[in-house]
Amino acid sequence: MKGFIIDLDGTVYRGSQAIEGAAEAIAELNRSGRRVVFLSNRGNMSRAMCRRKLAGMGIDAAERDIVLSSTVAAMFLIRHYPGQKVWTLGDQGLRDELASMRVMLASRPEAADWLLITLHETLTYKELNQAFRAVRHGARIMATNADKSFPGDDGESIDVAAMIHAITATTGASVEHVIGKPSALMAELALETLDLPAEDCLIVGDSLESDIRLGKQAGIRTALVLTGSVSRREAEASSFKPDYILDSLADLPKIVSQEEARRMKE
Amino acid sequence: MKGFIIDLDGTVYRGSQAIEGAAEAIAELNRSGRRVVFLSNRGNMSRAMCRRKLAGMGIDAAERDIVLSSTVAAMFLIRHYPGQKVWTLGDQGLRDELASMRVMLASRPEAADWLLITLHETLTYKELNQAFRAVRHGARIMATNADKSFPGDDGESIDVAAMIHAITATTGASVEHVIGKPSALMAELALETLDLPAEDCLIVGDSLESDIRLGKQAGIRTALVLTGSVSRREAEASSFKPDYILDSLADLPKIVSQEEARRMKE
Repeated sequence: MKGFIIDLDGTVYRGSQAIEGAAEAIAELNRSGRRVVFLSNRGNMSRAMCRRKLAGMGIDAAERDIVLSSTVAAMFLIRHYPGQKVWTLGDQGLRDELASMRVMLASRPEAADWLLITLHETLTYKELNQAFRAVRHGARIMATNADKSFPGDDGESIDVAAMIHAITATTGASVEHVIGKPSALMAELALETLDLPAEDCLIVGDSLESDIRLGKQAGIRTALVLTGSVSRREAEASSFKPDYILDSLADLPKIVSQEEARRMKE
Repeated sequence: MKGFIIDLDGTVYRGSQAIEGAAEAIAELNRSGRRVVFLSNRGNMSRAMCRRKLAGMGIDAAERDIVLSSTVAAMFLIRHYPGQKVWTLGDQGLRDELASMRVMLASRPEAADWLLITLHETLTYKELNQAFRAVRHGARIMATNADKSFPGDDGESIDVAAMIHAITATTGASVEHVIGKPSALMAELALETLDLPAEDCLIVGDSLESDIRLGKQAGIRTALVLTGSVSRREAEASSFKPDYILDSLADLPKIVSQEEARRMKE
């Protein structure tokens, strides 16, 4: 195992709180010369914001080693719909990330080719109405992810699926692209960033449906951490059975050493 | 025709603007001794607020002659679920209406038996999340109406269906009761308020799906006004074909006189 693709929410931190031992585990991987990339379905922040958040928890990460669904959405737009104008329904972080990658933002909803939806923790009715009007005027719909909830500071919290369905139910339109995990677009950019083949990597996350499923589909080995909303029993019963189940990210270096010892013996 | 059931949005006013001739038409009906009740799917205002809005347009209406979906929701809760506690996702007007009819409001989302959803023009993420948590903790879902859009001051605007689907899509729960037109609950309270049999009444509104359909189902004659989003051609092609089509509410007294003259001749 040379490269590690590590999820953030529920794996490295929960809300604003780092998960115990996570920072140390990541530092140990770095010290041993292994490559680490952070891969998150969060679309309402930019890599710059994410790097600052990790730094505040004592985790040292370069912006280029952070891949968010906002990052991948921006790349996808540039690659497949160059010159098209985007209206966003989501927090400022998404617009920052789009701007940092020179995606064109529409000046008003009616002028947009795309509505890009992400989690919007500062949502207002006015913004919901502007997104509605963008789609009524012909904007197509893309979402950074389609998660229903995420572990917030004070409990499970409503996620981007709320904003998506508010718009699709009232306009009759459908979402054409969902960028986040388990989409192959996320795996591609993570492996490209690591510059390693899938078989040399391990993906670590707390979600069977997004992290483990992504690994299975992309041929990357998988480790589930139990610091999210999935229990060991659910994991063992799932059709996306992970290769490893860890109590938390703190156990990752131990697994890596054991695996190495096993290989040496072979 | 002794009693008139008149819709508000798109029929009497659009946004904060009265429709031309509406106030005069209503005054004429009143002068001729006919009974008028206003019947609206609006659930984010109380009757007190609605009476003030109408008064500001020169339309004199008693609170008891106004029936909103918030009014009917409150009566429905009292009658069928007495003592049960309600959490709301919607503007303050809904809570005012519930309080005026002594419906018990839950002190926190987790304590609610019902989540009652209506249009929320002052929506925040926090309130969306509280509604989500109410349902995750077992609250059942009721909605004042399920309209997708309404004619706002500056154009067609996103309506309560957005708030409903934000919650149902993220919780997996379903809406058990939709109170507004074309539900029979609305027709019942309107006729009860008029104290007249259905065959002596006319319902006037701008929506085929809610006003005209309600009339057809309740055995009330129907008049469509073209001041909403429906054209004459759409009305004539619809399976809910109205008995009368009026350019606007201003033409109502003329229709009433013609109808009277025709009856006198018979």
